[in-house]
Amino acid sequence: MVKKIEKVALFGGTHGNELTGIYLIKKFLKNPHLLERETVKVFPFLSNPKAIKLSVRYTEIDLNRCFASEDIENLDNILYEQLLAKTIHQKLRNNQINFLVDIHSTTSAMGLTIILSDKNDFHLQLCSYLSLIYPELKVLYYASTDTNKLLRSNTELGLSIEIGSIPQGVLKAELFIKTEQLIYSLLDYLDKYNQNQIEPKSHNLVIYEVFEKIDYPRNGEEITAMIHPNLQSKDYHPINFGDPLFITFNGEIITYQGDSIVYPVFINEAAYYEKSIAMCLTRKQEITVTFNPIQS
Amino acid sequence: MVKKIEKVALFGGTHGNELTGIYLIKKFLKNPHLLERETVKVFPFLSNPKAIKLSVRYTEIDLNRCFASEDIENLDNILYEQLLAKTIHQKLRNNQINFLVDIHSTTSAMGLTIILSDKNDFHLQLCSYLSLIYPELKVLYYASTDTNKLLRSNTELGLSIEIGSIPQGVLKAELFIKTEQLIYSLLDYLDKYNQNQIEPKSHNLVIYEVFEKIDYPRNGEEITAMIHPNLQSKDYHPINFGDPLFITFNGEIITYQGDSIVYPVFINEAAYYEKSIAMCLTRKQEITVTFNPIQS
Repeated sequence: MVKKIEKVALFGGTHGNELTGIYLIKKFLKNPHLLERETVKVFPFLSNPKAIKLSVRYTEIDLNRCFASEDIENLDNILYEQLLAKTIHQKLRNNQINFLVDIHSTTSAMGLTIILSDKNDFHLQLCSYLSLIYPELKVLYYASTDTNKLLRSNTELGLSIEIGSIPQGVLKAELFIKTEQLIYSLLDYLDKYNQNQIEPKSHNLVIYEVFEKIDYPRNGEEITAMIHPNLQSKDYHPINFGDPLFITFNGEIITYQGDSIVYPVFINEAAYYEKSIAMCLTRKQEITVTFNPIQS
Repeated sequence: MVKKIEKVALFGGTHGNELTGIYLIKKFLKNPHLLERETVKVFPFLSNPKAIKLSVRYTEIDLNRCFASEDIENLDNILYEQLLAKTIHQKLRNNQINFLVDIHSTTSAMGLTIILSDKNDFHLQLCSYLSLIYPELKVLYYASTDTNKLLRSNTELGLSIEIGSIPQGVLKAELFIKTEQLIYSLLDYLDKYNQNQIEPKSHNLVIYEVFEKIDYPRNGEEITAMIHPNLQSKDYHPINFGDPLFITFNGEIITYQGDSIVYPVFINEAAYYEKSIAMCLTRKQEITVTFNPIQS
């Protein structure tokens, strides 16, 4: 079981063109009282000020792919974001951060999503609590691998908030406000948890679990097809055998050939064209989560 | 009156992260027969291959703001896009291009829009013809100034196609297909016009005319507000006195104080944050256009 969560880091601008997190963190830096909770100290950070200034995702390499232990320890890694990752990692250690929230946005229509790299009880209890307040909230489990470790995996407990659809370099007020509220509720939970005020009851939580990434059809590096119009903005909707996935530039339709129902996410995310990801496929599962009080 | 339109240039990738035009031009370069018309020769061009490769709007300066005559003639203008503008200008001259189409996309919900810098009879007749085929098509009149001359103003006749909403770095198949069809219809028109096959009849055309640009509320350079949720994606919808325009990061609402009904466009366009434009206000007018046959 998890002990008290006393120090929380909030990150925005891990990708410098995802404005929602950036302007939320700027707001919190100017108004620190908004983050004050009786038993929790919250540290807001702008992850990559250089990329933020240029309004680009990153300057040399994607910061959120620089946190594998062997990368952090590698003294030959001297690209800007590789150096920045080492500093952020050290800062989290020095401040003894217990819990980390990294705020992202996506061009995919993923609404209000929490992404977990770890399905431990504490994370699931927190997500259950938040799901009851925000019925639209989706919970996505996207395991990080040893070689592809993200910022959110730098502390034992942590998650990403992913909201969309929002174009890069754009703010959408409605999603800004929802994200802000979600963060306050999350901090309220941690504060209640620390004070043993979480009511122990069980709740069914739906989790979407990423199991496969699908690339665009390509000829060499060049993409030869687009997301099919029927699939555009249909994140978390089921796909069955024969449903259209892509349409080529010449109008041919490419369909899903799997035999089980899957739920796509990150459909048509701008930053994933270069990462060879047209969408991620998930399986939907419903689990019963029981709230457990803090270990005394 | 306009003589025959024999040479047409089609541009995509004037902004290197607006993928629709880029992939349309690539398609046309691979399949030149798609552009063949009896009396019209069509030249497809990728405007800024360096920006396209990097998937950025521009590398040093916005190419589409480098076409003022004094800029083209200024030998001290040696930023990459300034040099590129000179070459494009010369290429249009050398090829004796009569008509130019520049394909853009926007993060604003502008649907399928034609932007004119000049309301001459030929442009209006063409837009009337296309409006009859595509009832959803909007016609926007956005005059270019001497110091802010765009690519589309390099030939006597020319226009931009602007489609959205599409995030930067993203393709949306539905809008790709519509834009492609619009281009074919436009070429069909020019071909019919050259052969005196346009039926002379009159038609009412709605034009939205840009008369003012509105910036975000700012504190110094820093924006202090976002587009109000009620206005998001409401391009071409009327705004009246008292309607919300912005919401500050602290939740205060800023309303429209003008006393005439206006129609906003380019609401929340990503690339316009740096240009101090939150939206452009237009007035809506309806004019009667009469098709005039070619001067013989």
